Amino acid sequence: MSSSDNRFRRSQELFLRAAKVIPGGIYGHAGPAVALPGAFPYYAERAQGCRYWDVDGNEYIDYLCGYGPMILGHQHPEVEAAAARQQRDALCLNHPGPVMVELAERLVSLVEFSAWAVFGKNGSDMTTWSLQVAREHTKRRKILKVAGAYHGIGAWCTPGHAGLLEEDRIHIHDFNWNDIESFERLLKQFRGDIAGVIMTPFHHPAFHASQMPSPGFWSHIETACRREGIVLILDDIRAGFRLDLGGSHKFFGFEPDLICFCKAIANGHALSATLGRKELRIAASKVFLTGSYWNGPAAMAASMACLEIMEKEDTVSTLRSTGTMLMDGLVEAGRRHGYTMMASGPPAVPFLSFADDPSLRRQQRFCAEVTRRGALFHPHHNWFLSAAHTPQDIAATLRMADEAFAVIRDEGL
Amino acid sequence: MSSSDNRFRRSQELFLRAAKVIPGGIYGHAGPAVALPGAFPYYAERAQGCRYWDVDGNEYIDYLCGYGPMILGHQHPEVEAAAARQQRDALCLNHPGPVMVELAERLVSLVEFSAWAVFGKNGSDMTTWSLQVAREHTKRRKILKVAGAYHGIGAWCTPGHAGLLEEDRIHIHDFNWNDIESFERLLKQFRGDIAGVIMTPFHHPAFHASQMPSPGFWSHIETACRREGIVLILDDIRAGFRLDLGGSHKFFGFEPDLICFCKAIANGHALSATLGRKELRIAASKVFLTGSYWNGPAAMAASMACLEIMEKEDTVSTLRSTGTMLMDGLVEAGRRHGYTMMASGPPAVPFLSFADDPSLRRQQRFCAEVTRRGALFHPHHNWFLSAAHTPQDIAATLRMADEAFAVIRDEGL
Repeated sequence: MSSSDNRFRRSQELFLRAAKVIPGGIYGHAGPAVALPGAFPYYAERAQGCRYWDVDGNEYIDYLCGYGPMILGHQHPEVEAAAARQQRDALCLNHPGPVMVELAERLVSLVEFSAWAVFGKNGSDMTTWSLQVAREHTKRRKILKVAGAYHGIGAWCTPGHAGLLEEDRIHIHDFNWNDIESFERLLKQFRGDIAGVIMTPFHHPAFHASQMPSPGFWSHIETACRREGIVLILDDIRAGFRLDLGGSHKFFGFEPDLICFCKAIANGHALSATLGRKELRIAASKVFLTGSYWNGPAAMAASMACLEIMEKEDTVSTLRSTGTMLMDGLVEAGRRHGYTMMASGPPAVPFLSFADDPSLRRQQRFCAEVTRRGALFHPHHNWFLSAAHTPQDIAATLRMADEAFAVIRDEGL
Repeated sequence: MSSSDNRFRRSQELFLRAAKVIPGGIYGHAGPAVALPGAFPYYAERAQGCRYWDVDGNEYIDYLCGYGPMILGHQHPEVEAAAARQQRDALCLNHPGPVMVELAERLVSLVEFSAWAVFGKNGSDMTTWSLQVAREHTKRRKILKVAGAYHGIGAWCTPGHAGLLEEDRIHIHDFNWNDIESFERLLKQFRGDIAGVIMTPFHHPAFHASQMPSPGFWSHIETACRREGIVLILDDIRAGFRLDLGGSHKFFGFEPDLICFCKAIANGHALSATLGRKELRIAASKVFLTGSYWNGPAAMAASMACLEIMEKEDTVSTLRSTGTMLMDGLVEAGRRHGYTMMASGPPAVPFLSFADDPSLRRQQRFCAEVTRRGALFHPHHNWFLSAAHTPQDIAATLRMADEAFAVIRDEGL
């Protein structure tokens, strides 16, 4: 790409500066820019509703929503006003504010099986703490999880390989999604020593199509956990509040013992939470949990506002509707250009892939071309809808997708 | 205490509600209210400068500063304006903002030995990640730490005992503060397998007087780490920016390889950081690090403003001066009432205890009586000064302390 055509000049300048003072320039979920240089922005600076602008002024309809948090859209006026009102009084005090009690009461009333809540700042805080609660409650050691599932950056689950010890995962055992036999094998092998099973409500591994639970999969897991006294931990950090306000287990028809929320809980304000059954309250009170800013009331006030709006406006239905319109439209547009597309995952947290594209080359070019036209499609990570995406935004996106299919068709991909 | 005398009626009502929906009512650093019911507030709702108000309207001069973060005082106008300005544009985007690069550059220029920075939301994120970086860099397993030191809630270091496995700490080994012999014993025992030594700049265990490093202690540790290729990790989360803007190692005259900041880095906005030497950059780029809100630019903008103000106003000198006035005054006031007081730790992060008080009964009653008069003294945890504490605030506090000493003297304590 010639420099005169460069849509990402300022992004790239910043990335060069960053590479000097930040390991890898951008770390973590660095976005497709790092994996596929030249096709996606590195840095962004402004957002409103379902749109954001990168540092070069390019505008995007946002199908990542900050990797999930922005369920009501960016800069939601009521959520921001609630947070600002609280923050004017108190940012970080020696004691919690009343809003911590109110939010715990609110969440416990929303999530039927739960009797209590605790709060953190990251998803990883909550998944890792939940494991300890399960171990304390059962006095057992083993944790079963799904191979390839993401539960955060704890040494027991990080997708990274560096800096780990054999002991970090000696009691963590993987079974395969939708594979009851592989689950039963572990159950049999470690019977009596299994503290917990931690799972996401559906399977959304990076670089792959999402997988919904097969009929009977969740009820099998649930029944086995009850029978064996195993704590069933639902990691609802990614899907939470997008499928059912009362927790994604309701969408799939089962009940966990602990549920971890983050992301959409406060429309982008830093907050996470774990809720649990009353039987786990004593264990939960014993496993130490704190952090420098965990009492911070502003994010909790934002969460109260976010929950109220999601309930009042039935955000779950909106996301299902616009997500369905998007995914149906994309599959149809692909068909018009001769591509068999796979829409996977629930429409509110969807993913799109090409049916026959093992190298992901089509996927990457397609997403790059849609992004160039103004809708950010991540080629390797599930997408997120927000309540700010209107049918008009979806229609505009489908027009961009139509053009992008034509481009890759012309390229012979 | 009769109900008509109850200063904490609303706090207690909230705590009773909380006990139903939050394990333990308040978890983590729950404050002295939970340990000593009736003498300290449970909940607070407003703060300004060096003062805050609990939910019953009681006013306190704040000597905890949110357990550290509020280094410039509550609701600092310039910091809040910088955060709000950024937050109006962007709260949580798919990509970092330019401010992430600017802040990394700023920190790296402030901390002489460092070449790079990464960011998180809690102190625990950063200490735990640093261990992994040390292990990746050295390809060794063992971590040495000081017995009784607090480094967060990771399973390898939490002060809690619940939900832990033997394997969590199998490669963590404790030596004693200021005890070179106990350090050398571990060095000899695990020679060639020690990845890192993690330490706070001075020792500030809960329920005990703080301990400064003995002459030669830090240089011994530093020399040994260099000689053996061990990564020296400074946990500067609690003291950072209060002793020296360039890191607390400068105050004590040594250099670590990694330094972890949190708390005072952004005057209460949720942010933490690790900075490291250039030799550790490759390891740092390999150890996976992310989180739902870790790109959030508002806390980074707050940090830029906070760093600028601390430098411009020489906050370090202010804290030393007011902290010295406070601690000298308290020791002198104690003497007038016949008590031998110990002021421990640096004046900016001080602690006060009675010389002969093994049950902590005097300490607890004294702190309760000062708190009742309007200055929050935590009986079990080190205190924090802020730049908003004026000599007049200190003088007012010393008058309260004088009365409190008289009260406990009358009680025969």
